[in-house]
Amino acid sequence: MKMTLSGAAALTAVCLAWAQPVAAQFAKVDDAIKYRQSAFTVMNIHMGRLGAMARGDVPFDAAAAQASAKVVELVSHLPWDAFPAGSNTGAAKIKGDPWKDPAGFAKLQEDLKAQTAKLPAAVATLDGLKGQVGATGRACRACHEQYREVR
Amino acid sequence: MKMTLSGAAALTAVCLAWAQPVAAQFAKVDDAIKYRQSAFTVMNIHMGRLGAMARGDVPFDAAAAQASAKVVELVSHLPWDAFPAGSNTGAAKIKGDPWKDPAGFAKLQEDLKAQTAKLPAAVATLDGLKGQVGATGRACRACHEQYREVR
Repeated sequence: MKMTLSGAAALTAVCLAWAQPVAAQFAKVDDAIKYRQSAFTVMNIHMGRLGAMARGDVPFDAAAAQASAKVVELVSHLPWDAFPAGSNTGAAKIKGDPWKDPAGFAKLQEDLKAQTAKLPAAVATLDGLKGQVGATGRACRACHEQYREVR
Repeated sequence: MKMTLSGAAALTAVCLAWAQPVAAQFAKVDDAIKYRQSAFTVMNIHMGRLGAMARGDVPFDAAAAQASAKVVELVSHLPWDAFPAGSNTGAAKIKGDPWKDPAGFAKLQEDLKAQTAKLPAAVATLDGLKGQVGATGRACRACHEQYREVR
């Protein structure tokens, strides 16, 4: 299946996808912030476990790697509807303005999900793990460098 | 497959399972607390979405219910290795002492996972969702009433 969207249509789709879930799914902006940060925390811990195997800090364990890879894959889908426009308030740690460039922000999300989708199969071997954890980490960092305030 | 364990062997198994991962998987107790609380936050939001459908506060949506059910199922496996003995410190919100009764605490965890495993299939229909969200919520509450400090 091939899908083509004009830039304008893609932007409209992104904005619609954006506008709807926030009001529907989070009672308060703080709930959305807490949810997305929780999802990132869970992802971060499991990426850390995979990274420790990649670096050789802990022995490669295919079953443990697979379990962490599945968590990262699933959870990488969760944070994105929890970024209501302007939600750089309270406990939020955003730099820049991701809502100024929704298509660019969406692209960073899609890039991450494309990489995490490859993780569960890749981590069956240590070499596969090293490569795909690296690629996934780069997708994490691409967004962090642009939009994550480190405090 | 049928597995029987004497009480003593079961307790030993629980204690071994407990002793190992904490040191291996979390650098600091605070990391474990943050991780388990993040997992509970993610579960809570998705249980809330399912609960809203069960109560009729939002229209039943089988695809959205399925997505939330899968998150709850997977994430319900995560918090339990993040309760190192005595980790009722810092941001922890524990009442009582789950480490005094590891077999009882493990039973509460197993009860929850048994219920969340049924969620993805059950939420295909609104009636199924209502029943299984109720049963899962009771498994959540059984542990909360015993061990969760509400502040």
